[in-house]
Amino acid sequence: MAGDSMISCDIDLAEDGRHTGFLRVPHSTHVSAYGWIGLPIVSIRNGGGPVILLTAGVHGDEYEGQAALATLTRELAPEAIRGQVILLPMTNAPAARAGLRTSPVDGGNLNRLFPGNPRGTPSEMIAHYLETVLIPRADVMVDLHSGGSSLWYPPTLLRGGGANAAEAARLRLLQDAFDLPYAWVFTGGGGRGSTARTAMGAANRNGVTCVMAELGGGGVIDRDILALTLRGLRRVLHALGMLPGHTPDPANGTRELHAEGSVHARDAGLFEPLVEIGETVRAGQSLGLVHDRDHPDRAPSDVISPFAGILLAKRAMGLVEIGDAVGQVARDADPP
Amino acid sequence: MAGDSMISCDIDLAEDGRHTGFLRVPHSTHVSAYGWIGLPIVSIRNGGGPVILLTAGVHGDEYEGQAALATLTRELAPEAIRGQVILLPMTNAPAARAGLRTSPVDGGNLNRLFPGNPRGTPSEMIAHYLETVLIPRADVMVDLHSGGSSLWYPPTLLRGGGANAAEAARLRLLQDAFDLPYAWVFTGGGGRGSTARTAMGAANRNGVTCVMAELGGGGVIDRDILALTLRGLRRVLHALGMLPGHTPDPANGTRELHAEGSVHARDAGLFEPLVEIGETVRAGQSLGLVHDRDHPDRAPSDVISPFAGILLAKRAMGLVEIGDAVGQVARDADPP
Amino acid sequence: MAGDSMISCDIDLAEDGRHTGFLRVPHSTHVSAYGWIGLPIVSIRNGGGPVILLTAGVHGDEYEGQAALATLTRELAPEAIRGQVILLPMTNAPAARAGLRTSPVDGGNLNRLFPGNPRGTPSEMIAHYLETVLIPRADVMVDLHSGGSSLWYPPTLLRGGGANAAEAARLRLLQDAFDLPYAWVFTGGGGRGSTARTAMGAANRNGVTCVMAELGGGGVIDRDILALTLRGLRRVLHALGMLPGHTPDPANGTRELHAEGSVHARDAGLFEPLVEIGETVRAGQSLGLVHDRDHPDRAPSDVISPFAGILLAKRAMGLVEIGDAVGQVARDADPP
Amino acid sequence: MAGDSMISCDIDLAEDGRHTGFLRVPHSTHVSAYGWIGLPIVSIRNGGGPVILLTAGVHGDEYEGQAALATLTRELAPEAIRGQVILLPMTNAPAARAGLRTSPVDGGNLNRLFPGNPRGTPSEMIAHYLETVLIPRADVMVDLHSGGSSLWYPPTLLRGGGANAAEAARLRLLQDAFDLPYAWVFTGGGGRGSTARTAMGAANRNGVTCVMAELGGGGVIDRDILALTLRGLRRVLHALGMLPGHTPDPANGTRELHAEGSVHARDAGLFEPLVEIGETVRAGQSLGLVHDRDHPDRAPSDVISPFAGILLAKRAMGLVEIGDAVGQVARDADPP
Amino acid sequence: MAGDSMISCDIDLAEDGRHTGFLRVPHSTHVSAYGWIGLPIVSIRNGGGPVILLTAGVHGDEYEGQAALATLTRELAPEAIRGQVILLPMTNAPAARAGLRTSPVDGGNLNRLFPGNPRGTPSEMIAHYLETVLIPRADVMVDLHSGGSSLWYPPTLLRGGGANAAEAARLRLLQDAFDLPYAWVFTGGGGRGSTARTAMGAANRNGVTCVMAELGGGGVIDRDILALTLRGLRRVLHALGMLPGHTPDPANGTRELHAEGSVHARDAGLFEPLVEIGETVRAGQSLGLVHDRDHPDRAPSDVISPFAGILLAKRAMGLVEIGDAVGQVARDADPP
Amino acid sequence: MAGDSMISCDIDLAEDGRHTGFLRVPHSTHVSAYGWIGLPIVSIRNGGGPVILLTAGVHGDEYEGQAALATLTRELAPEAIRGQVILLPMTNAPAARAGLRTSPVDGGNLNRLFPGNPRGTPSEMIAHYLETVLIPRADVMVDLHSGGSSLWYPPTLLRGGGANAAEAARLRLLQDAFDLPYAWVFTGGGGRGSTARTAMGAANRNGVTCVMAELGGGGVIDRDILALTLRGLRRVLHALGMLPGHTPDPANGTRELHAEGSVHARDAGLFEPLVEIGETVRAGQSLGLVHDRDHPDRAPSDVISPFAGILLAKRAMGLVEIGDAVGQVARDADPP
Repeated sequence: MAGDSMISCDIDLAEDGRHTGFLRVPHSTHVSAYGWIGLPIVSIRNGGGPVILLTAGVHGDEYEGQAALATLTRELAPEAIRGQVILLPMTNAPAARAGLRTSPVDGGNLNRLFPGNPRGTPSEMIAHYLETVLIPRADVMVDLHSGGSSLWYPPTLLRGGGANAAEAARLRLLQDAFDLPYAWVFTGGGGRGSTARTAMGAANRNGVTCVMAELGGGGVIDRDILALTLRGLRRVLHALGMLPGHTPDPANGTRELHAEGSVHARDAGLFEPLVEIGETVRAGQSLGLVHDRDHPDRAPSDVISPFAGILLAKRAMGLVEIGDAVGQVARDADPP
Repeated sequence: MAGDSMISCDIDLAEDGRHTGFLRVPHSTHVSAYGWIGLPIVSIRNGGGPVILLTAGVHGDEYEGQAALATLTRELAPEAIRGQVILLPMTNAPAARAGLRTSPVDGGNLNRLFPGNPRGTPSEMIAHYLETVLIPRADVMVDLHSGGSSLWYPPTLLRGGGANAAEAARLRLLQDAFDLPYAWVFTGGGGRGSTARTAMGAANRNGVTCVMAELGGGGVIDRDILALTLRGLRRVLHALGMLPGHTPDPANGTRELHAEGSVHARDAGLFEPLVEIGETVRAGQSLGLVHDRDHPDRAPSDVISPFAGILLAKRAMGLVEIGDAVGQVARDADPP
Repeated sequence: MAGDSMISCDIDLAEDGRHTGFLRVPHSTHVSAYGWIGLPIVSIRNGGGPVILLTAGVHGDEYEGQAALATLTRELAPEAIRGQVILLPMTNAPAARAGLRTSPVDGGNLNRLFPGNPRGTPSEMIAHYLETVLIPRADVMVDLHSGGSSLWYPPTLLRGGGANAAEAARLRLLQDAFDLPYAWVFTGGGGRGSTARTAMGAANRNGVTCVMAELGGGGVIDRDILALTLRGLRRVLHALGMLPGHTPDPANGTRELHAEGSVHARDAGLFEPLVEIGETVRAGQSLGLVHDRDHPDRAPSDVISPFAGILLAKRAMGLVEIGDAVGQVARDADPP
Repeated sequence: MAGDSMISCDIDLAEDGRHTGFLRVPHSTHVSAYGWIGLPIVSIRNGGGPVILLTAGVHGDEYEGQAALATLTRELAPEAIRGQVILLPMTNAPAARAGLRTSPVDGGNLNRLFPGNPRGTPSEMIAHYLETVLIPRADVMVDLHSGGSSLWYPPTLLRGGGANAAEAARLRLLQDAFDLPYAWVFTGGGGRGSTARTAMGAANRNGVTCVMAELGGGGVIDRDILALTLRGLRRVLHALGMLPGHTPDPANGTRELHAEGSVHARDAGLFEPLVEIGETVRAGQSLGLVHDRDHPDRAPSDVISPFAGILLAKRAMGLVEIGDAVGQVARDADPP
Repeated sequence: MAGDSMISCDIDLAEDGRHTGFLRVPHSTHVSAYGWIGLPIVSIRNGGGPVILLTAGVHGDEYEGQAALATLTRELAPEAIRGQVILLPMTNAPAARAGLRTSPVDGGNLNRLFPGNPRGTPSEMIAHYLETVLIPRADVMVDLHSGGSSLWYPPTLLRGGGANAAEAARLRLLQDAFDLPYAWVFTGGGGRGSTARTAMGAANRNGVTCVMAELGGGGVIDRDILALTLRGLRRVLHALGMLPGHTPDPANGTRELHAEGSVHARDAGLFEPLVEIGETVRAGQSLGLVHDRDHPDRAPSDVISPFAGILLAKRAMGLVEIGDAVGQVARDADPP
Repeated sequence: MAGDSMISCDIDLAEDGRHTGFLRVPHSTHVSAYGWIGLPIVSIRNGGGPVILLTAGVHGDEYEGQAALATLTRELAPEAIRGQVILLPMTNAPAARAGLRTSPVDGGNLNRLFPGNPRGTPSEMIAHYLETVLIPRADVMVDLHSGGSSLWYPPTLLRGGGANAAEAARLRLLQDAFDLPYAWVFTGGGGRGSTARTAMGAANRNGVTCVMAELGGGGVIDRDILALTLRGLRRVLHALGMLPGHTPDPANGTRELHAEGSVHARDAGLFEPLVEIGETVRAGQSLGLVHDRDHPDRAPSDVISPFAGILLAKRAMGLVEIGDAVGQVARDADPP
C-alpha cells in the first residue's frame, strides 16, 4: 500500500549530504486550490550504515523535540556522521504551526491514527506515509514528545520490553545512551503484531526499534530539559556508531518506572495541586483540590489517587473539567 | 458618581459576620434577558477597625490569588479578626470563568480600564464600581496577580514609593509583612493625582494604600507559591492588627528591584530561552533564540536585551509573534 | 444633532401613498466597501392627521411584531387611513436577520443605546436616527417586543403613568384600545427629562406618547398572540381616528400590574420550573429547581423568590447560568 | 466486538444498592491529554428481576427526560425496587452539557450512529458501548426524547409493532402503563434484523423491548409534561413488577397515530404558523406563511401540506431555511 | 447500490416539460430536526433523445457555471429541445450558498469524494447520488468549474482522450462545439475502470462522455467569460442535436495544451506576480516574488518554475502560505 | 495631545541613512502580556529637504501599495535622495497581516477613525499617532489604496481641490507626476478645518498636501498596476526634487472625473455584471443581475443605476447582500 500515498517528497532520501525540503501533503482548500501542506524533512547522509528516524511535533504543542531537531539539522555535518539521519521536526505540521496538540485542519491526534489512510484526512495521510514509507527505511526511531499544553513530565524515556532478546538489548542500549532521569517501561504490547495506533506501534509493526521521550511540557521549552535532550540525542547517535567523533560525558543513570494510571477530576473548577512530580503518593491520598470559585464558601473537592507510587506527571493548566487527568502515578520497576 | 453604578450587591457590607454573595452586573444577552453577571464577594467583619480589600482575578488567568482568597473565605473566622476583610476572588469574573486574561464578554483588560464607566461595558462597570464604591471603603488594598498564561514571575511584591512619608512607611510595613522573595519598587507615579488606569491607580486616587503581587504564572497554580501567598496574607492581616491571634514565623527577607524594561521578539517562531529567572543579564546579551521551524536549515534569530540586570520574568508560551515580551529585566534597587 | 446622521432614507416620508424602501446605515466591511445595512421602512400616508410610528425587531429575536408589521404593510390601504403610519418591521435589522437579541455586527442591544451616536456603531447610529429623525415626526409610538429567545411573556402592554394628565389619558386610551390580557404599568420615570436608554425613553424625551408590548417569546411566533397583536394594532389605529372604516369588536379587558422584580439562578444547571405564568407566588417560594446533571445524586438547588405576586414572565431556555432570570414577579396594581 | 470498547465504567453494575459514577470515554485533547469524557451512569439494584435501561439526552437539548432521570436517581430507594434500574440521564453528555442536539466534540447525532464504532469518534464509541454492553444487559429499554430546540411534540409514546406476538403484548403493556396522550405506532421495521441506526434499532437487534417518548421540546422543560413523564415512568416500573409498593392512579388513555410525513419550508424567512398541534390538516392546506422581512411588501409564501391528518409536531423556532420541517402530520391508527 | 440513497427528488425526471424542484438530502441539526438540505434541480425534457447532465457549483465558489445554468433554466423552452437537459446549478448547495469551495456542513470537497457514500456526510451522499442515480441517466455530462476563490483560469475545456475511438470523437466534437480559447487534454486516466474521485471519474465509470470547463475564477463572474460559457453550452446542445433551432456562429478555434504541473510558494508572504496567463515560462524562471512585509528591508524570495511552457492559471489571492499554488504551467499539445 | 501617544518608535526619524524598525503599539493580550503590535516603519533620509510620508495598508487587503513600498524600501539609496522618505507599508498592520480590510484586533476601519484616540483601541491609537506625530513631520503625503477584497478600481489618483491656490498647484503637480489613467477629483471638503475621519482629513487638518490612489483591488496584486504605481512614486519623488538622478519617461495623461455615487444591490444572490469599468452608464440602466440560485426559475432582479457617467469601480465578489455596492459611477470633470 506504500505506493498508494499521495504524499511526495521534495528531496532525494538516497542522496548523500544534507538536504532539506518538504513532504507535500495534497490539500485543496477554499484559499488554496491545488495546494499542499508542507512538512519540513531533513536528510543528513554519509554512505551506508544505520538509518535513524527522529520525529518531533507528532503533537504540535510539544516543543523541546522540535527545537532539538532544528538545532541538529544545522549542527550535524554530513561528513561527521555514518549512515543516515532523517529528521521530521514538525511531523504534524499544521498542529505544530498552530501550537496545538491536534491538527486544526482535521482535528486529528496523529499519535492515535496509525496505520493511517492514503486517501483520508491530512493527518491520516501523514500517518500512512510514515507507516509505509519513512519508518520502513529506518533501523531505529526516536519519537520526541512532552506533556504538551496540559501536562508536565520530567525528562523520561519510554520504551517497551522488546520483541525479542536482541531488541531488548538494543532498547536498553538506547535508554542508557539517552541517559534521562526517568524511564517509563511498558509491561505489555510492543510485538510485531502490535495494533497500537501510535507511531511506536507503527515502528513495532515494521520491526524498527523505537523509543519515545517525554521532555517537559506546559506548552513551553525548558532550557535545561532541552540541553538534556540534545545531549541524549548526540549520545544515541554515538552509541549507534553514527557519530564517531563525539565524546560522551559520564552517564547520570535512569530510574525505571512502571505506570499505575492517571487520576482524574470529578468536578470542574480551579485545581490546586497538593503533590509535586517525584513525590510519593499513597493510595487514597488527595493529589489536589478543586475549588468552586463561584461559591468560595463551599469546601473544595479532593482528587483522590487510587494508586500508590510516585507522581510522574501533573496537570499544567489551572482549570479542570470532569475527566481531566490531574496527574499520573507510577511505581519503581525494581522497588528498593 | 458612585451612586451612578448599575451594579448592586447581594450582601450587606456593613453587617458583622461572614457573608458571601454576588455583585450583580446587569448584562442582557440573547440567552439571558434581564440577567446579570455575578462576581462573588465575601465580607468577613468584626466591629470597627481597619478595612482591607483583597482582590484576585483582575486578570482571569492568574490563579494563585483566586485559590488563596477562596481558602481565606473559609479559614478566617469572623470572631478571630478585627475590622473587615472584603474579598473579591474573581474580580473580572467572566474572564476568570473562561480562564482568560481579558473578558470574553467585552474583550476588556480590567487593569487598563479604571476609572471605568457606569454605563459602559461590563468590565468598565466593574472598574467603576471598584473605583467609586469598594475601594473608598478600604484602608488598605492588596491586588493579587501573576504572570498569567503568557509569563512567569517569581513571587514578587509590587509597590510605589508612597504619596508621603506615612504611606511610604505603611508600604514598607506591608512589604515586610508579605515577605516575598522579590519586590519591584516603582520609581514614579503613585500620587493622589494618578492617571493610571490600573486598580492600583484607583487606590492611589482614593488615598488607599495599595500593594500588588506577582505570584507565578503560566496559567497554573504552583503549590509552593500558593503557600507563600497564604502565609503572606495572614502576616499582612496580623501586621495590620486585624488577625491578633496569628503568630507569624520569622521573615525571609525581600530583594528590592527597579524595572528596566521588557524585551520583545522581532521574528515569529519557536522560542528557546537562554536565560532563566534570577540570572544576570548583560546589555546586548541574547535572552533566547527564535527558530523558523518551516526552514530548520536557517539560523534562528537572537532576542537581544538592551538592558542589564537580572531576569525578573520570562515567557511561559513556546511560540512567539513579533512584539511578544520574552522577558523582563530589572536591577537591584540597592546595588551591592 | 438630527442633521448629523449618516443614515439616509430611500423613500420620501412626506409623500402620500404606500412606499417601502430602506434606511441606509453606512457600513464598510471586508466584503462590502462603500456598502450599507438596509433597514426596511414603510410609509403609508393619506394627507394630514396623526402620525404613528410602529417599531418591531428592536430586539431581533422577538418575532410577533415583525410578522404583524409585515402583514399591516400589505393590509393597510392608503385610502383607508387618515394621517400616516410609519412601520419599521426590523428596527435592528442585523439582529433580526440573524435571529438574535443583539446585533451580530457590533453586539449592540438597541434598547440600551438611546440616544445613540451619529458616528458610533451601526446600532448606535440607528438609535440616534430614531431619536432625532423618526420619533420627532410621530405623535404616537408603539414598540412591539416579546420575551425573545430566553423569556416568555403573556400578551402584555407596557406603559408609564404619563408626563401629565393629558398624556395619562392618551396612554389609558391606547391601553384600552390594544386590549391585551395584562398591562405592566411603570410607577416611575417617563417624563420629558427621561435618561432611559430605551426607545420609550427616546419617545418620552421627544414628547411622543409611547406604549410597548410584550407578545410571547421563546424565539417563535404564537399564532393566537399574533392574532391578538394584529387585532390590537387595528383597534389602536381606529381609536386614534386613523382607521375610520374599522369596526372593533368588544373589549376583553386588561389586568393592570406593577413589577416586583426578576428572580435569578445562583447555580448553573438544568432548570425545572415549579410555577407557571399567571400563578400566585409567595415570598420565599421556590420558582424552580436547578439540577446538577453531572452528579444526579446531588439534590437540586431551589430558586427562591423574594417577592410575592403573580408570575408574569418565565425562562424559555432549559439551561441556566448564574445570574439568569428564571422569572419575573408582579403584583396587581389594584389588589382586590 | 463488545470487548473492544475503550469505554470503562466507574461503578459495578452487578452490585446491589444505588451507585452513581461515570462512563469514561477516552478523549485526548489540547487541554486534556489522557483525559476522558464522563457520562453519568446510575445503577439502582435489588437482587434478581427485570433490568430496565432508561436513557435521556441522546439528543442533548431534549430536557424533560434528563430532569426525570435525575429525579428518579434520588427518588428510587434500592429496597423499594425489584431487579435493576440503569439510568443514563445524559447519554450524549457533551451534547447535553452544551445544550445542543448533536455533540460539539464530533458533530455526531447519536441517534443516527448505531451500531457505533469502538475506535471511532466519542459519539460512535458511545453508540457502540450501548449496543454491545449496556443494552444487552437489559430486558426493557425506555429512551426519552422531545422535539428538542427546533420542534414541539405533545407527550407521545413511540413504538413499533413488535417482533412477535409476545413482544407486541409487552409493547402494548408499556404503552398503557406510560399512559401518554398520544402514541405514534410505527408500521414497519422493528425486527431483530433491523438496520436502523437509532437506539431503538440497537434494542431491536438485541431483542430488548423498547419504547421511546417525545415529551415536549422547544429546548425547555414543561412542568406539566415533566409530571406526566415521571408518572409514566413510575407506572412502567410498577407494571413490570419492579416497583411493587407503588399505587398507580387511573389511566387517561392514549390516542394511537400513524405518521404521514413532515412538511418543509421551500423559502427562507420568518415562519407564521396557521395550524396548532392536534388540529386537523387537509391535504393542500397551508401550515403557515414564510415572510420575507427584507421586502415586507412582497406576499409571504405558503407551506402546503401534501398530507391529511392532524398536526402532531410543529416548529419551535421563528426563522426557517429551505428544507426545515415546519410540522409533522399523522393520522389516527383507527379512524373513527 | 443506487437504491440505497437517502436522497429523494422533488420532481419526476421522466416527465416532459420544464420542472424545477429540490433534491432533498436528509440532514438533522440542532436548528432543524427532520430537515433536509435542498439542491435545486431542473429538468427540461421533450420526448426521447439524448440526455445531457449539466452541473455547476461542485465547488461552491465557482460562479460562471451557476449563473449560466440559472439562465438556461429560464431560456430553454421545452418545445425547442430534443431529449432532456438536467441542470444542477448548485451541485454542492451548502458550499455554493456560503460562497465556499468546500461544504461548510462537513468540510467536503465534492470533487474529491466520488463514488460517495449513501450513509456518509451530506457531501458524500450527494456524490453517491450523482454516481448512482443522475449520471447513469445521462449520455453526456458537462461539469462547469472555474479557478474559484484562489485561482484564475482563462476559458478552458478539460477532457480526457476517450475510452475508445468513438468516445474520442465525441469528446473532440464537444470540444469543437464549446469553442473555448484553450483545451487542457489529459494524457492519462479516463477509462471505464477509473478510480478518480472526481465527477468526471464518476462519468467515466458509468460510460458517460464528459467534459469539464474552467471558466475564470477569483470568486467573481467575468461578463465576457459568462457570455462565452452560454454561447458554448448552446453550441454543444446544437451539436448534439438537442437544440435544432439554434444557428451557431463561426468557431474561434481552441489551443490544445498538456499540463506540466503547478508551482508552489515555499515562503509565506505577499505575492507579486511576474508572469501573466498565456505568457511563456522557461524552466528556472521566477513566476513571482514573496515579500516579507514585516521586514521590508529583507529581499523577497522567488517562486521558481521547474517547468517550461505557458502560464495557464495564476493565483487570485494576494497572500500566500507555504504550499499554495501560485500558477500552473502547460505546454502545447502540438508544439509548433 | 501628540505627547500623549503610548506608541513608541524603534528608529530615530531625525537620523540620516536608511533605517527600518517598528512602531510599537502597546497591546496586552491573553497570549502576550506586556506585548506590542509592530508596525514596520522605514526612514530614508539625506539631510534637509522635503519630507514625504508614504502609507499603504491603511486597509489591510489593499496590496499594490504594500508591495510598492517594500520595493522602494530596498531600492531607494539614501545617497540618491534629497530630504526624507518615511514609509509605512502596513499602516494597519494587524489588518494587513490577516489580509482583511479592517483590524481583526478591534474591528477598526482605520480610514474612518481619524483623529484617533491615544487611549483607545489599537486602530485608534494608530490613527492618533499618524495625526499627531507622523503627518505633522511631512510636507507631502501619498496614501496608497485599492478596491480591496470587494471592489476593483482602475489606477486612479484621488485628490481635493486644495485649501488655496498654492496647494491646488501642488496637487496638480502631484497628479501630473503620478500620471495614472484616471483622477477622481473631490468637489468639496479638504480645507484645514476638515472633519473627515480619513488619513487625508488628518493631512488636511495638518496642512500637509495629500493625494490618495486606488490601484486595482480584488484582494490581489496586478502586475501592470504595480508597475504603474512604482513608476508614479518615482516620478513624484523626482517632481518634488527628492530623486534628482531619476529620468522620468513621457507622461500618458490622466482623465479627470467627479464621482456621482455608488449603486447598491437590493436583493441577495449571485451577481452577474452587465457593465465593465470604463464603459458608459445611462441613468436607469441595469449594472447587473442578481440571481436567486435557490429558485433558478425565478427571474433575476436588476441593479439599476440612478446615475449617468462611466463605471469607475465594480464589485470583485460574486455574491451580494442587500446594500452591497456593485459599482461606482463617475462623470468627466470636463465633459467633451
